[in-house]
Amino acid sequence: MTQLKSNGNSNRHGATDEKVEISTDPISPNSKKIYVNGTLHPDIKVPFREISLSPSTTINSNGNGNNGHHKENSENSILVYDTSGPYTDPEAKIDIREGLQPIRLPWVMGREDVEYYDARTILPKDDGYRDGENPNTERFPKTRSQVLRAKPGQNVTQMHYAKKGVITPEMEFIAIRENQKRKQWIEDAERENRLKGNSFGANLQNEITPEFVREEVARGRAIIPANINHPESEPMIIGRNFLVKINSNIGNSAVSSSIEEEVEKMVWSSRCGADNVMDLSTGKNIHTTREWILRNSPVPIGTVPIYQALEKVDGKIEDLTWQIYRDTLIEQCEQGVDYFTIHAGVLLRYVPMTAKRVTGIVSRGGAIMAKWCLTYHKENFLYTNFEEICEILKSYDVSFSLGDGLRPGSTADANDEAQFAELETLGELTKIAWKHEVQTMIEGPGHVPMHMIKENMEKQLAVCGEAPFYTLGPLTTDIAPGYDHITSGIGAAMIGWYGTAMLCYVTPKEHLGLPNRDDVKEGVITYKIAAHAADLAKGHPGARVRDDALSKARFEFRWEDQFNLSLDPEKALQFHDETLPKDSSKVAHFCSMCGPHFCSMKITQDVRDYAQQKGVEETQALGEGMKEMSATFKEKGGEIYSKL
Amino acid sequence: MTQLKSNGNSNRHGATDEKVEISTDPISPNSKKIYVNGTLHPDIKVPFREISLSPSTTINSNGNGNNGHHKENSENSILVYDTSGPYTDPEAKIDIREGLQPIRLPWVMGREDVEYYDARTILPKDDGYRDGENPNTERFPKTRSQVLRAKPGQNVTQMHYAKKGVITPEMEFIAIRENQKRKQWIEDAERENRLKGNSFGANLQNEITPEFVREEVARGRAIIPANINHPESEPMIIGRNFLVKINSNIGNSAVSSSIEEEVEKMVWSSRCGADNVMDLSTGKNIHTTREWILRNSPVPIGTVPIYQALEKVDGKIEDLTWQIYRDTLIEQCEQGVDYFTIHAGVLLRYVPMTAKRVTGIVSRGGAIMAKWCLTYHKENFLYTNFEEICEILKSYDVSFSLGDGLRPGSTADANDEAQFAELETLGELTKIAWKHEVQTMIEGPGHVPMHMIKENMEKQLAVCGEAPFYTLGPLTTDIAPGYDHITSGIGAAMIGWYGTAMLCYVTPKEHLGLPNRDDVKEGVITYKIAAHAADLAKGHPGARVRDDALSKARFEFRWEDQFNLSLDPEKALQFHDETLPKDSSKVAHFCSMCGPHFCSMKITQDVRDYAQQKGVEETQALGEGMKEMSATFKEKGGEIYSKL
Repeated sequence: MTQLKSNGNSNRHGATDEKVEISTDPISPNSKKIYVNGTLHPDIKVPFREISLSPSTTINSNGNGNNGHHKENSENSILVYDTSGPYTDPEAKIDIREGLQPIRLPWVMGREDVEYYDARTILPKDDGYRDGENPNTERFPKTRSQVLRAKPGQNVTQMHYAKKGVITPEMEFIAIRENQKRKQWIEDAERENRLKGNSFGANLQNEITPEFVREEVARGRAIIPANINHPESEPMIIGRNFLVKINSNIGNSAVSSSIEEEVEKMVWSSRCGADNVMDLSTGKNIHTTREWILRNSPVPIGTVPIYQALEKVDGKIEDLTWQIYRDTLIEQCEQGVDYFTIHAGVLLRYVPMTAKRVTGIVSRGGAIMAKWCLTYHKENFLYTNFEEICEILKSYDVSFSLGDGLRPGSTADANDEAQFAELETLGELTKIAWKHEVQTMIEGPGHVPMHMIKENMEKQLAVCGEAPFYTLGPLTTDIAPGYDHITSGIGAAMIGWYGTAMLCYVTPKEHLGLPNRDDVKEGVITYKIAAHAADLAKGHPGARVRDDALSKARFEFRWEDQFNLSLDPEKALQFHDETLPKDSSKVAHFCSMCGPHFCSMKITQDVRDYAQQKGVEETQALGEGMKEMSATFKEKGGEIYSKL
Repeated sequence: MTQLKSNGNSNRHGATDEKVEISTDPISPNSKKIYVNGTLHPDIKVPFREISLSPSTTINSNGNGNNGHHKENSENSILVYDTSGPYTDPEAKIDIREGLQPIRLPWVMGREDVEYYDARTILPKDDGYRDGENPNTERFPKTRSQVLRAKPGQNVTQMHYAKKGVITPEMEFIAIRENQKRKQWIEDAERENRLKGNSFGANLQNEITPEFVREEVARGRAIIPANINHPESEPMIIGRNFLVKINSNIGNSAVSSSIEEEVEKMVWSSRCGADNVMDLSTGKNIHTTREWILRNSPVPIGTVPIYQALEKVDGKIEDLTWQIYRDTLIEQCEQGVDYFTIHAGVLLRYVPMTAKRVTGIVSRGGAIMAKWCLTYHKENFLYTNFEEICEILKSYDVSFSLGDGLRPGSTADANDEAQFAELETLGELTKIAWKHEVQTMIEGPGHVPMHMIKENMEKQLAVCGEAPFYTLGPLTTDIAPGYDHITSGIGAAMIGWYGTAMLCYVTPKEHLGLPNRDDVKEGVITYKIAAHAADLAKGHPGARVRDDALSKARFEFRWEDQFNLSLDPEKALQFHDETLPKDSSKVAHFCSMCGPHFCSMKITQDVRDYAQQKGVEETQALGEGMKEMSATFKEKGGEIYSKL
């Protein structure tokens, strides 16, 4: 365990007294970190988690031909996608005050299109203080005075390289990362000749090649959030022809929580499986909190820059200006934020459309811009300055996450005029961003009943040129505060199946309070479920490998394997032990639900033993014979019922 | 609080030391039990929970025409469907040792087609003991020596009455129960002229009349589980043109849990919102546990009789006989079980189809029958004796729940030959049951990835003549033991939308252990969410009333109303208080997530104040004006970008 040392000022804003520590334990006892090297770029090291399994115990894998259903897993392990970064690598030296290794730095420098320059000076107001005031929290010790940007006239976005035909190390990293499960699956499928499931989108039946990654990024159908000033991050891709990704939100607010807690939540999120993290901090110490998070984050970090801009004007929306906002963008580009939520689609003329809604405008950024527009009777300055924003973003490779400021905040407001008007504008803006070769994704709702979800996806694909969709849920009913990870997990799984590329998690605390560590985990796991269910439904090659391995372990009473293969090994073990705590029961061929007499899986083994003993042909013959007999029964008018 | 008195033998089988008590508190502080009387049958008293609300605080409901979106709720309350029975009625006298009042008894007797007779003698083996042994638990004190059955030649099923054109008190009770929300909705919709949402199935846009209930039951499209020997139950209906229902499973096993816990779980389940409860007990004391449950249950109770039959032969499947099973059926009919899961579709010739599955047969009942069939090379005795079973069931009005013994236990096995072969047989059996006018529903899977769910529903509707479908989830992925309420809640919501009439809950302990009280609640609430999301998606009139009331309360910062309208008021309050515990914050116009500056709802109020001040026409004019300006901009080639 590596503890984040506090300067004694911790938890000043905190409502809780949770101990803040960064776990560096492996995720389950039988798993370990491994790396796969690149081919085009041999120096890249793509992380996976390898889960070791016990040998299969049934006749199904003994090669007697009775059940050729499953490949015998000679390596007795499977690889899973790993978002946890160096924190689960026992070889890695973790020091929160040093930050992670800048693994992408050689790649960025190798392209020879960037330069160091003196970063903007950090001001007290960046942390919400007046001039002369000092932030009451510890600065990240190794703050850089020089940062990177594109050389004049250069564009350093992954989309730019992709369009030029260049396969970057980031792209090869991603191909390996996305492809591993697919490879296992293709081997399985070829061997067993049981390739089935729906195809969805382009090219799913083929291997993910670095070239395919490049094509998808060039086409705008996928993005790689990768600010050149966040070299600590491990490349990942967001696009509907790849694994569905999830985002977790963290962030202190004016009311609650501390810096240390937020860093710990980021590490904890990625450990649980979050692919991206958004820092939605408001209140004091925004800059400093973000610095700690970025320097220690193996996953891309997103923000909503208007939050910080508003803090700089003491929360007075009427004092917001383009200059303040622009300065904030540059500040965050220099720090290394990987994508910005920008509510440039909240146009003045759309604001009246929300007047008759049940819940008005529920996006913070959307509400801020709407009020600004009304105050001045002017168009949204994010819209009018959009091309300048593009110029800034392409100098650092920050991706757009075009915000849905007018998303519905209740099922009553779903798919209304305001929501879809804004979406049309986001489509226009996407084209402008692409003209600048700035990577772009589109944010989506919100609260939407199930029967209205598909329309969202279809409209987004049509209007936004297939730029990746990134939705918040959607929540499928409004009546369950305290359980909105579930109301939204339903919608998230469905919209993921329909084609959404990234799902923004919702925690059980949504609408009620700020999530603590347990809530973050509950939210992340729920969304891993939704994303994985979507991958399965899309027929994503490879998605089934883990399901099938777990199901087989379950059937064979390999309890430890079942726990280790699950999304939350710790909880699975704990739940099992609550009813049957004895160690011996983990090798027992029954469980507490049914007991030995009623165990269907045990009885099925008896059935299979019978089949093996008789030979499968005879068993099938038995089936055939019974079919004939049954046909005879029917011909005779259902003689089996004659006794009644 | 009324405690279930124990005879000192409690918890002998128990793995936990939870305190067993029956709560009789109201579900939330601002709700109370009310009853609505019948018209055709004035003596019927249909229960509802009335949730009181504070007055609306926004301009939206002040009748100034600015926002005619919502009916002003002059009564300041809404009614919700209430499954909790007398336990939440402060007027009711609750005594677990007396049991509930037999409210349906006068209706049953009034039909003059039943007779009392001496019940079958309760034997030690009914509780899993040998002759001479005594059950080691307390018998229900008021066990009846005489029970009811149909007079010779009579059929006492609700389907029989329905087909004869008789509207029973049960049917009128249900019409009122189902219709109340619908009435509120229709009033709302007519007044506001905003009737939208998809129609689904028959007759949804119309009022639910007693005659409509009768038609649906006569058609076999809905069932009313209502054993004449369970007069304590409040009538409810299962059919896809009604609200989606949920079932919770309880039951001790040979390994764990006690009678008292099971009774408490039943009351707790219905309090949380379960419409039905299945008692899946195995091991000792099955008969006695069930008697306690039935005499105290306001909701219909289902069982799987083969479990008890197997206990009577000491778990030896080869010793099972039709005679033992038949005797068990009669025993349970006399006790008052409302529906039986009967695995009559597991035919001998289907068993070999499961040999190559990843997880074989996972239904306990299915596995038992499969083994029996193989042992004797004989057809399933539930199939060969099916018409005699019909004869028994129609004498008590026990409904069939035709079991899916070959349901898939992993996503790999979904929609396979074995599963659909059995479904075809269940379709045949449905027709036979209907010939006898026995009410029938069909059980469904199981583990099914999202893209394969719809096929299940469509096939079931086609093959089983639209008999109600009753599914277990389905689980949409296998990789999350510990979270299978969520993996299955996703599938449940979807299949409910597609037309499933009742959803069998799954708790977080699924696959790992027996659920405790917290797990039961988590499972029930998750399934209430799935069922309600399905009602919304089906466009069920009335389903939106509660969502809209809660959303409006949320928008107006009526925190207490938001809590009280939620599915779990206690948890919503607790979560809110974790971050903002001060009472004053419950009237605050912001919350801990955003703080005062960032509150989008507060800002929206500012926007509305502006709109009101300017008059809505001017605001709209502003919008129009901007539209023109925007068009001009576009004509000029996007002049707003000219500065770049």
